[in-house]
Amino acid sequence: MKVSADVRAMIERRKKGHTLEAPFYASEEIHALDMDVIFRKHWIQVAVEPDVPEAGDYMTVELGNDSILIVRDDDMQIRAFHNVCRHRGARLCSSEKGSLGNIVCPYHSWTYNLNGDLMFAEHMGEQFDKCKHSLKKVHLENLAGLIFICLAETPPADFAVLRASMEPYLLPHGLANCKVAASIDIIEKGNWKLTMENNRECYHCVANHPELTISLYEYGFGYQRSADNEEAMAAFDKTVEERTKQWEAMNLPSKEIDRLADLVTGFRTQRLPLDRSGESQTMDAKVASTKLLGGFEQADLGGLSFWTQPNSWHHFMSDHIVSFSVIPLSAGETLVRTKWLVSKDAREGIDYNVDNLTAVWRATNDQDRALVEFSQLGVTSSAYEPGPYSPFTEGLVEKFCAWYIGRLEDYANTPDEAVVPSSHGEKVVSFKR
Amino acid sequence: MKVSADVRAMIERRKKGHTLEAPFYASEEIHALDMDVIFRKHWIQVAVEPDVPEAGDYMTVELGNDSILIVRDDDMQIRAFHNVCRHRGARLCSSEKGSLGNIVCPYHSWTYNLNGDLMFAEHMGEQFDKCKHSLKKVHLENLAGLIFICLAETPPADFAVLRASMEPYLLPHGLANCKVAASIDIIEKGNWKLTMENNRECYHCVANHPELTISLYEYGFGYQRSADNEEAMAAFDKTVEERTKQWEAMNLPSKEIDRLADLVTGFRTQRLPLDRSGESQTMDAKVASTKLLGGFEQADLGGLSFWTQPNSWHHFMSDHIVSFSVIPLSAGETLVRTKWLVSKDAREGIDYNVDNLTAVWRATNDQDRALVEFSQLGVTSSAYEPGPYSPFTEGLVEKFCAWYIGRLEDYANTPDEAVVPSSHGEKVVSFKR
Amino acid sequence: MKVSADVRAMIERRKKGHTLEAPFYASEEIHALDMDVIFRKHWIQVAVEPDVPEAGDYMTVELGNDSILIVRDDDMQIRAFHNVCRHRGARLCSSEKGSLGNIVCPYHSWTYNLNGDLMFAEHMGEQFDKCKHSLKKVHLENLAGLIFICLAETPPADFAVLRASMEPYLLPHGLANCKVAASIDIIEKGNWKLTMENNRECYHCVANHPELTISLYEYGFGYQRSADNEEAMAAFDKTVEERTKQWEAMNLPSKEIDRLADLVTGFRTQRLPLDRSGESQTMDAKVASTKLLGGFEQADLGGLSFWTQPNSWHHFMSDHIVSFSVIPLSAGETLVRTKWLVSKDAREGIDYNVDNLTAVWRATNDQDRALVEFSQLGVTSSAYEPGPYSPFTEGLVEKFCAWYIGRLEDYANTPDEAVVPSSHGEKVVSFKR
Repeated sequence: MKVSADVRAMIERRKKGHTLEAPFYASEEIHALDMDVIFRKHWIQVAVEPDVPEAGDYMTVELGNDSILIVRDDDMQIRAFHNVCRHRGARLCSSEKGSLGNIVCPYHSWTYNLNGDLMFAEHMGEQFDKCKHSLKKVHLENLAGLIFICLAETPPADFAVLRASMEPYLLPHGLANCKVAASIDIIEKGNWKLTMENNRECYHCVANHPELTISLYEYGFGYQRSADNEEAMAAFDKTVEERTKQWEAMNLPSKEIDRLADLVTGFRTQRLPLDRSGESQTMDAKVASTKLLGGFEQADLGGLSFWTQPNSWHHFMSDHIVSFSVIPLSAGETLVRTKWLVSKDAREGIDYNVDNLTAVWRATNDQDRALVEFSQLGVTSSAYEPGPYSPFTEGLVEKFCAWYIGRLEDYANTPDEAVVPSSHGEKVVSFKR
Repeated sequence: MKVSADVRAMIERRKKGHTLEAPFYASEEIHALDMDVIFRKHWIQVAVEPDVPEAGDYMTVELGNDSILIVRDDDMQIRAFHNVCRHRGARLCSSEKGSLGNIVCPYHSWTYNLNGDLMFAEHMGEQFDKCKHSLKKVHLENLAGLIFICLAETPPADFAVLRASMEPYLLPHGLANCKVAASIDIIEKGNWKLTMENNRECYHCVANHPELTISLYEYGFGYQRSADNEEAMAAFDKTVEERTKQWEAMNLPSKEIDRLADLVTGFRTQRLPLDRSGESQTMDAKVASTKLLGGFEQADLGGLSFWTQPNSWHHFMSDHIVSFSVIPLSAGETLVRTKWLVSKDAREGIDYNVDNLTAVWRATNDQDRALVEFSQLGVTSSAYEPGPYSPFTEGLVEKFCAWYIGRLEDYANTPDEAVVPSSHGEKVVSFKR
Repeated sequence: MKVSADVRAMIERRKKGHTLEAPFYASEEIHALDMDVIFRKHWIQVAVEPDVPEAGDYMTVELGNDSILIVRDDDMQIRAFHNVCRHRGARLCSSEKGSLGNIVCPYHSWTYNLNGDLMFAEHMGEQFDKCKHSLKKVHLENLAGLIFICLAETPPADFAVLRASMEPYLLPHGLANCKVAASIDIIEKGNWKLTMENNRECYHCVANHPELTISLYEYGFGYQRSADNEEAMAAFDKTVEERTKQWEAMNLPSKEIDRLADLVTGFRTQRLPLDRSGESQTMDAKVASTKLLGGFEQADLGGLSFWTQPNSWHHFMSDHIVSFSVIPLSAGETLVRTKWLVSKDAREGIDYNVDNLTAVWRATNDQDRALVEFSQLGVTSSAYEPGPYSPFTEGLVEKFCAWYIGRLEDYANTPDEAVVPSSHGEKVVSFKR
């Protein structure tokens, strides 16, 4: 879509180190631009491999007006298609999850196989060419069990960088051998970028997240040393250094990688110590599932956090994984989908208990929802003007905003405005700011 | 209203034999155009004579932002007015149905007679001219008991063609001597054209309508012979031929008339045999009301189907009539109003039972609603592109779309864009495709 | 905001003595203009002093997208601020009412004192200047206990005229020493101007308000003598004259002042006799609270009515006050907030009963809501055209419309369209019609 002069001007004048101007959070024009430029042209994390454990299992994901069908075929390959019949456009599968042999349209029974080929269409006559009416494919990548899709014709090539960096961190946790123990959707009445900004700092944690801060040190999430926290951060940094050494000796990569701002497919990771029992993000910081993941033999492996641009974050622990995917619904409404995964072999009520497993993040999500909603209400006020980020605690928020504005800027400056993200391999995006 | 260049281009490039482009189903601009060009300038079927059986009876019909008051005066004449007071614009009657002597505005008691003349307005002084403040009239035609209105200043003159063709078919069923035994409104979350397209083919019937296909042969609804159905259609055609001969011998016109595509006030009709007991569209194909209509003496008269452009269809049987009127509510929402009529003399619980009378179409409407909604979800996907209609089973869908596009095209090409449909008598509209 | 050519043309051609054209009641563009030109640049009545009786008490008021925090500081001064944190824009107070020591943002605990100064903000470093991040102030005037705010940078100066005229009328009723006995919000599905127009005439009272007309004479609300009411009005005028003389002898100013049309901050007032017992607007016209207001020693003081442009009206009686504030929610939705106030010393269940106190206006508001909604439904019809106001009973409605159109006209004709209402002191606005 076209970028209007007003939006171009707002992109140009964005004040570094400050929140965005109000229309970025509230205008339907910019929401449409976000859906087109960000959510239709980047790698979007939408599912986990255990969502479709068996051959023939499918799930549907709604992304803007698009419905995507993710299906595991008989060769156990996971594929993605547009969930749209090629006859009269009817939605093919309307459940969130299910299993099927072929994909049969409910309207006139046009039938596709799990590779998307049209196998059967009655009454169409001899002129009709079935080969020209296959389901439309969607790009899909499976990163150690995390499923990303991209709706662009040519997706950003730097997913390869993400894969090369992250597989060594993620694979030891064996996500592919997990099961989804719980999945909860909440809708936040706020723009998706407020949800992401809230995720990218822990400045708000102490005042708002009593359950989360049982196990989580706020310092690991983008804090810089300052007069306000000199001593506590020195102690924390020492702990991080010691534990990192231990974990890496166990072949568990743990050091920070921060590519949030310099890649199209931006990300950040670090394995961080947990407080108290140090085992898991639970109400007592102990494991929630006694069946450890991936053949681990000890529980105090801290939390491996993994953040992606534009829409996800994940915490991998010794006993369970929590995975968050953010999907904009409108300028002022955002879906936050949280999944808790435990070992496939863990037995509910014996090895783990869903209430205990989900307690911390159910509470935390609800607190964050309220904060995002307070922000949305405020930024649409006529009195709102961009405010300053803390240079010591909100650096990652700034990186998110800078990445976002950079992506819009690149799009707006592409001659025909039908930009294809073009960073290949290690090549770094040239951000103009 | 003005037709934008984008919409003109879409009208121009419409691909014959294919579904329409997505904006025709989803854009609010085209919805506004549909309301203006189609629903405010054509004859719209909105009621049946038994809705207002007695002198003083009224009903209100909502069509876009307009509320229309349909009232039967003391001379038993049925008239239509805009339901808007000429003082401060208040809505006059807010119930769906009722009865009245004069029309009194609830706000300041301005009082109109049933001819729409302002009779009384307090405090307006001597300068005030009551004659200039009559209710605004709306054109109304009563076709054998089916009520059509037209909001245009000069309505399409070819209603005369419709009347001349259809009265001989419809009058024998005596709709004016029926009563409304049941009326059910459903709202489909889909564009009104998807509702109409769904109505214009039975390709979807076998897979979706187990109740309807007890009595209904799919072949009668726009099927052409093809390799897929050669034998069954030959048998069906033979039955049609035999029954048509019998019915016409009884002075019941039965042969197909198809003017869907060549008239402004397009329509189609045919009396078709029913399956099994062959009497009525019920769960056992037997009459639902034992008091036959219009002095009929035998029950197996099949079903006389009558379809109109742009918004209605009706099935007239020996014992009851089912009448469907479609009203767009927004680009993505459509009201389907279904009325079941039986003889005025039929006694509920004795001669007929409402549950039995309505069973088939309650189920069928609900199934069609789901199909329309699947279609709406699909066509708004970015992956949707117009798909091919079956040349053997979806010919009437194509006729509906061609008529619709032709009407928009005529409007867009009228010099001052304030087009008045102009086909008189038998003169045929020149469609440009 | 810019005034489009279409809207300018509608402003220009407004027909005096007639209702407004439909877009003034239904278009979102004009709604945005109303919020900007009328509600953000004029004095808006939003609260009463007893809403925040104690030091530290606050209330929030939503006006369009703005949330305003009204707070009483430790020196008992009432102040207004934008309810928006200067950090990341979060809403500070989310309850309608409460009490606080400092204003603490829920997000990152930025802390402001009751004067709006930023006192504390962690992690912001030494470069950060707290003085530049105070809460944004909103203009506030307290007129004898009625709280008005203005969001403009420079509010209309003629509030001084209003104050000078009205304090002598209002102060004797001692609103500051009252308490809010009941507060009821209703949402009318109609444009705010229809709500105001309905308030500015009593032509509709006899047919619609059986409870209100127990105590209220319709004639006091903008009636002119005409053939229809010659005799009754003569009797009424005589009563008004007698009672006015008595009340003014008691130092209760009572004569009509009408500045509805000639001031930016337009208003009208008059103390009017009540019917029957003549004491109060109740179901028996007797006082609802036996603790009279402001040291009054007699109950039959009639009703002092006070109307303001653009959004309020109030009835001050010997025993209680009813105060109405109108806030647009969208082009077609309006909040009407009604407060009933009695003496601070009155005891519920002993000196007054809430059901009895509120009975008349609960019923009347509901009747008016229905009338406003009928009007909204009617004016959006394609058949609607501006109708004539009664010259004898709807003169104040015309004054409201003339004031409104005049305000838009002044704005549209201001060279840079960033008009500041400019009438100072007694200087009268030059309306162009």
